Amino acid sequence: MSDSAENPDYQKLLALSHELALLQDTEALLNWDQETQMPRDGVAWRAEQLAWLGGEMHRRFTRDEVGGWIAACEDVGSEEGSDEEANVREWRHAYDRATKLPSALVEEFEKTRAIAKSAWAEARKASDFSAFAPHLEKLIDLSRQRAENWGYEDCLYDALIDDFERGAKSANLKKLFGGLRPELVAIAGEAFEREPVDPAKLAGEYPEAKQQAFNREVAEAIGFDFDAGRIDTAVHPFCTGLGPRDTRLTTRYDESDFRSSLYGVLHEAGHGLYDQGLRGDCHGQPVGRAVSLGVHESQSRLWENHVGRSRAFWDRWLPRAAEYFPQLAGLTPEEMCRACNQAERSFIRVEADEVTYDLHIMLRFEIESAVFAGDLAIADIPGEWNQRFEDFLGLKVEKDSDGCLQDIHWSLGIFGYFPTYSLGNLNASHLYAAALAQQPEIESQLGEGDYSGLLGWMREKIHQPGSRFLPTELVARAAGSPATPDAHLAHLRSRYLAS
Amino acid sequence: MSDSAENPDYQKLLALSHELALLQDTEALLNWDQETQMPRDGVAWRAEQLAWLGGEMHRRFTRDEVGGWIAACEDVGSEEGSDEEANVREWRHAYDRATKLPSALVEEFEKTRAIAKSAWAEARKASDFSAFAPHLEKLIDLSRQRAENWGYEDCLYDALIDDFERGAKSANLKKLFGGLRPELVAIAGEAFEREPVDPAKLAGEYPEAKQQAFNREVAEAIGFDFDAGRIDTAVHPFCTGLGPRDTRLTTRYDESDFRSSLYGVLHEAGHGLYDQGLRGDCHGQPVGRAVSLGVHESQSRLWENHVGRSRAFWDRWLPRAAEYFPQLAGLTPEEMCRACNQAERSFIRVEADEVTYDLHIMLRFEIESAVFAGDLAIADIPGEWNQRFEDFLGLKVEKDSDGCLQDIHWSLGIFGYFPTYSLGNLNASHLYAAALAQQPEIESQLGEGDYSGLLGWMREKIHQPGSRFLPTELVARAAGSPATPDAHLAHLRSRYLAS
Repeated sequence: MSDSAENPDYQKLLALSHELALLQDTEALLNWDQETQMPRDGVAWRAEQLAWLGGEMHRRFTRDEVGGWIAACEDVGSEEGSDEEANVREWRHAYDRATKLPSALVEEFEKTRAIAKSAWAEARKASDFSAFAPHLEKLIDLSRQRAENWGYEDCLYDALIDDFERGAKSANLKKLFGGLRPELVAIAGEAFEREPVDPAKLAGEYPEAKQQAFNREVAEAIGFDFDAGRIDTAVHPFCTGLGPRDTRLTTRYDESDFRSSLYGVLHEAGHGLYDQGLRGDCHGQPVGRAVSLGVHESQSRLWENHVGRSRAFWDRWLPRAAEYFPQLAGLTPEEMCRACNQAERSFIRVEADEVTYDLHIMLRFEIESAVFAGDLAIADIPGEWNQRFEDFLGLKVEKDSDGCLQDIHWSLGIFGYFPTYSLGNLNASHLYAAALAQQPEIESQLGEGDYSGLLGWMREKIHQPGSRFLPTELVARAAGSPATPDAHLAHLRSRYLAS
Repeated sequence: MSDSAENPDYQKLLALSHELALLQDTEALLNWDQETQMPRDGVAWRAEQLAWLGGEMHRRFTRDEVGGWIAACEDVGSEEGSDEEANVREWRHAYDRATKLPSALVEEFEKTRAIAKSAWAEARKASDFSAFAPHLEKLIDLSRQRAENWGYEDCLYDALIDDFERGAKSANLKKLFGGLRPELVAIAGEAFEREPVDPAKLAGEYPEAKQQAFNREVAEAIGFDFDAGRIDTAVHPFCTGLGPRDTRLTTRYDESDFRSSLYGVLHEAGHGLYDQGLRGDCHGQPVGRAVSLGVHESQSRLWENHVGRSRAFWDRWLPRAAEYFPQLAGLTPEEMCRACNQAERSFIRVEADEVTYDLHIMLRFEIESAVFAGDLAIADIPGEWNQRFEDFLGLKVEKDSDGCLQDIHWSLGIFGYFPTYSLGNLNASHLYAAALAQQPEIESQLGEGDYSGLLGWMREKIHQPGSRFLPTELVARAAGSPATPDAHLAHLRSRYLAS
């Protein structure tokens, strides 16, 4: 076990990580600017800039000598539990993934994605699955080849999931989701019956500038650092990191309903707090990097749902909101809270409430699993989708644009991503419950609008470790036990079924 | 004379130009974002990103094989007046400039600049030239070394000027400015006596959002294309190109006077129209690139001053401005025009009016000339500055922060830049007069708020040629004769002396 400072190969890898982080953050700026600022006609040149940067990063990382440095570090070994150990493990993983694909396959995949994306947009407009099916078929075939090149232990689909959730396996997800689904269906059935808050009580004007001011107050209160970040407007809200001290959120505004931008900000600020909580001194190294989408999503859901849709939140913030938007003065915090937690049968995933959301995900996970297991033909996807949708949500899908054509993911060749949304929900509930159990004072702090206790717990247990542990281990270490659906089901029952 | 499409070395240079343009525009985005969007704490990481990109571009362009490609193209030769001829000429010039500096000198210059910049900021705050003098001395010494490495024909200072104005020589500038100065002093003396418009007539609120809307209308009217550009807010207004169809302007707002942001926008939109008028298919090549600062500044001054401060402009735009800002309804176009053309004795260059502006420049040019000729010691700069200032403008400089410490340029090691501002003014007047002489209908068009004739002339004569000709040749070809001070003096007399 040598000191890594004396290991020149390790030092070279650190320097390379630093350089690649400079490029990656430049790529992030090019993307952020495209979504929030760039004039319309800038798009073609921007695509060339992004392609150049992507190619350059790939070339630099996949050089043979980089593989040599990693192998040399593995030979020397690292102290158990050290930064070095985790960095070398993750560099190896990334290097193997990046070098195992033949460049002809990479190129064909990119080409196919580009064509499939517009074919999907057309097909969705026409609600015509058959127009998208040949593209989907090709993308699935290429994804199979990618998975075969990467390799897997149990099933091919796992190799795809691993791109988004390090170490996740479909067998475990199946078990996790299997326990969750019947309970969710039961909760949903009951929640649908609950009387909604009269929408007239929230009716009125919500000027964008006032929403911005209110959202900023809330984001600052939960701990988002505006010296190292900002909020802009984008069609699809997102959060992106542009450097160790530069985290940018976006949201969108509906001037007839302030909840859309507020929960957009709370969700993205949750991602942003994770980003701002990473170790800046290790920026670009695996130990300074968020561990997975499923853990990232736990942070966004935590602040959006567990904090932002709670009764305690509205006890604290409704009076302030009513100063910006006087029409809210007529609501009680209880009503406001209920108005932010209403379950509804609906077709579209991105508009789904907290109860039904995971049902949308499970349906996609089951269909992807079946397709990659060879048990479901492409042509049969719509039928299978619609059958399940009726089983899960009691709604009959009348057109594929409301069904299996609604999401962009497949058209981009992204398979194995959807489960991370549900993992985010389960992790959020599991971590939130653990934080409150370990530090009971957090609950009363939240009642007083003091979010530092909860954030401090997440900082220490989730943000600071970066990618030191695999996602499931990180969550289990933080909470003291591995994530199960229990906490999430308890959360949903208390939110949606308590009268 | 071979077809350049068959010359593989020329093709390699085209490909390299394209690649470097991708990087350069990425650098421009990093800078633009830093000035307009970036959160405060992003600055350190941003500096690293910029340093990486700068280094990478330098490395790629200065490789030995690039010199080989250029030499091979020179051996083959190009058709006279062709794109190829101009590209090869400019690549050679840039390659020689980039490769002639020993890297130790480059490093020391960069290091010295970084330190000098903060020393200057401190010295200016304390109005203490002696605190800045040693840094200035070192920068001047290093600049001498740079010039010696680059080489020059007549005088060392020319090698520095050439960085900003290809082919300009201080002997010519001296002659040009020499004819201008006494005339300017005479015009200024008379203009100072003219009764200013009562400021109370313009007093009132100018809300930022309304200024933005008005400025946008004006910028659109003169031809700035918002599908390929945008306007943002920055402390120091600037214009930057981020790609062949992405040109960004900035301005700043004073809510008690809309003229500051309006003329900021007109000035920067003048730069932007040049940028948008370049040949997009040659983006990154010399023939698709603006030729010099002195020509760039001619375009900004033209739209800001010749168009934007004219009586015809206010005949057209005052009624519209008064719809946004009702307090303006009491002014006549003649008064508004006069209020935008008031000569004043003032210490600060960037606040100077059109008459006195060039006097500020000449003073700097004469001091830089004397310093690099070895005729003026660093310690004597303040005395020399103040003496000339009193001669030119009749004002006694009481503190160096109002005198030789006011500009940032020297602290950045930028010598030979100032003359380009005056070249811009002279070129603007010369080109404007030529356009009106060649196409007399432009004048009546301007009266109707139709700017397409004037823009079309500039597009054809100045923008489309890019860097095909050296700046003085470009201007002479466009106007039919080389630029002299005559047109500018006539312009100032009619603007400032006609009652």
